Amino acid sequence: MIGIVLTGHGSFPSGMMESVELITGKVKQIEVVPFEEDKDKLESEINQAIENVNTDSGVVCFADLAGGTPFNVCSTIAATRDNIRVVGGTNSPMLLSGMFQRELVIDKFVESVLKEGKDNIKQFEMKQKQASSEEDGI
Amino acid sequence: MIGIVLTGHGSFPSGMMESVELITGKVKQIEVVPFEEDKDKLESEINQAIENVNTDSGVVCFADLAGGTPFNVCSTIAATRDNIRVVGGTNSPMLLSGMFQRELVIDKFVESVLKEGKDNIKQFEMKQKQASSEEDGI
Repeated sequence: MIGIVLTGHGSFPSGMMESVELITGKVKQIEVVPFEEDKDKLESEINQAIENVNTDSGVVCFADLAGGTPFNVCSTIAATRDNIRVVGGTNSPMLLSGMFQRELVIDKFVESVLKEGKDNIKQFEMKQKQASSEEDGI
Repeated sequence: MIGIVLTGHGSFPSGMMESVELITGKVKQIEVVPFEEDKDKLESEINQAIENVNTDSGVVCFADLAGGTPFNVCSTIAATRDNIRVVGGTNSPMLLSGMFQRELVIDKFVESVLKEGKDNIKQFEMKQKQASSEEDGI
């Protein structure tokens, strides 16, 4: 099973985690690493978190912002190790869909969660076309 | 200025809010509404939050999941009122970019944050092409 590290500024990862578990129930093999101020501490904690959740299937680090410190620290680690991947711009649909695909090959997993994350950014739209065509029929 | 309501399951909205304010500093005209269990309470709180942040420019509700209860409650309100918009799949890049565009017309604002949210879901990729071309040159 793919291990997951969820990281980001402040309460982002803990809030996201609690929210996801309200929907899915308790999630296994996942670690939450908040970034407050200390980059060295963050690096040490992310390394430890990766160790904690890593099995043969690898680890995906979900960060709040591509280019932010948590994303960059994960990327520095991923650059020198096999089977570590890093995604940024994490939202709930990405994480939720990922929870049910953790037996995939890691690159297929990443491809899928990126797509789910993007496809599920949407706005509420009233079915105005339908409404107007119904009016036409009256 | 466009008002913002940030909502979602459990600690999602408070975690996201604290995280964004770590980066931008204190944000004005924004309300955080967590959803725990009680849908009627949520509806009442979202209505109140919209009132609190609404000016002539309208309000955008940012929810964790399109199709989730917080998104649906906001959408029901938006369906019967002008100048309320609802987006789902909220991530940090959407919110952060939105913070600096709150004087836009509301539909331009929504269009922009949806694009920013999608465009900033990405994975860390090493510049392997560059590396291999450098190797070719040795």
